[in-house]
Amino acid sequence: MHFSSRLLEQAVDEFGRLPGIGKKTALRLVLHLLKQSNSDVSRFTHSIDQLKEQIRYCATCFNISDQEVCEICTSVKRDHETICVVEDTRDVMAIENTNQYQGVYHVLGGLISPMDGVGPSDLKIDALMERLKNGEVREIILALSATMEGDTTIFYLYRKLKDFDVQVSTIARGIAFGGELEYVDEITLGRSIATRVPYERNIG
Amino acid sequence: MHFSSRLLEQAVDEFGRLPGIGKKTALRLVLHLLKQSNSDVSRFTHSIDQLKEQIRYCATCFNISDQEVCEICTSVKRDHETICVVEDTRDVMAIENTNQYQGVYHVLGGLISPMDGVGPSDLKIDALMERLKNGEVREIILALSATMEGDTTIFYLYRKLKDFDVQVSTIARGIAFGGELEYVDEITLGRSIATRVPYERNIG
Repeated sequence: MHFSSRLLEQAVDEFGRLPGIGKKTALRLVLHLLKQSNSDVSRFTHSIDQLKEQIRYCATCFNISDQEVCEICTSVKRDHETICVVEDTRDVMAIENTNQYQGVYHVLGGLISPMDGVGPSDLKIDALMERLKNGEVREIILALSATMEGDTTIFYLYRKLKDFDVQVSTIARGIAFGGELEYVDEITLGRSIATRVPYERNIG
Repeated sequence: MHFSSRLLEQAVDEFGRLPGIGKKTALRLVLHLLKQSNSDVSRFTHSIDQLKEQIRYCATCFNISDQEVCEICTSVKRDHETICVVEDTRDVMAIENTNQYQGVYHVLGGLISPMDGVGPSDLKIDALMERLKNGEVREIILALSATMEGDTTIFYLYRKLKDFDVQVSTIARGIAFGGELEYVDEITLGRSIATRVPYERNIG
């Protein structure tokens, strides 16, 4: 790309570093911002600077929070005997949106991935074990991605959690609701048959 | 979406205002920035602030430029008797990338669009007419989109340019190179047949 301005090129380069944003999209976004008012652009950049400077993580569950301890961890309405372990804040948001879960969370901040140089010590695993020491937690739900990294992390956590008197669960895997059989991958389909459940349980 | 942090929500809202960026993508981009170093994030926001504050437009052709007059307009290697009229700086970049054009440009800054409240006075049309007054320009190439707004703008410019002793051209329209006939829309195909050219000219 031939840029008529170094400043333009720099801004496009920066946008192009974002995941999933190619050079053409980056240029489109930068030219869009150029057409906006000064105050609109300031508000955009200020919101990012402010978030980066003032971001805090809940001291208990490590979810992104504006307070020392997040709203979920301080809520008396939540079941503090059940901890759902997730990779990041997006997973907390997705599970909260289901309205199916009343327990609390623990945000690992990633998954074990030797390929990416992420080991157990890079994640909030020790902090999770700390939370179990007072004996109040009864169940740990491992809600991690069905990927190699997710499975590796589940296996690692499962072995660590055996030392505690706590029920360890993983979220159910199988055919998604509305999923047509012919489009389901073979591994999922094969395991769905192997781990089939009585009909009475499925409608329960 | 349920956000655990107001700062996070604000940043996601701002990103979500960009064209083609939905809420989920916005969240992904913001969380990506949160994982980057402070200096990387500062460089990102600073590049946008700096561009917005210091952006200049060439006094001659109105392309984005770091100088008072842009490199193309000051180049002695360019043909200053030919002006290619385009909508915005992206079109200049696209045409420059072809290496097929040696003339100069004039950036309108948009297209006439009554639906969007954009009239001729909102575009750099008077400035284009000014450039013709010294009589040095021989040809004006209207390289505008093949849309209703593009056609409206071409029609308006064509009527204004009739007062000047200048050749007015529009870029060729037809089947794209590599385009398969069965996938071409009917209007393009029909007009391509109606405006067919002798084979000798096509290979010229």
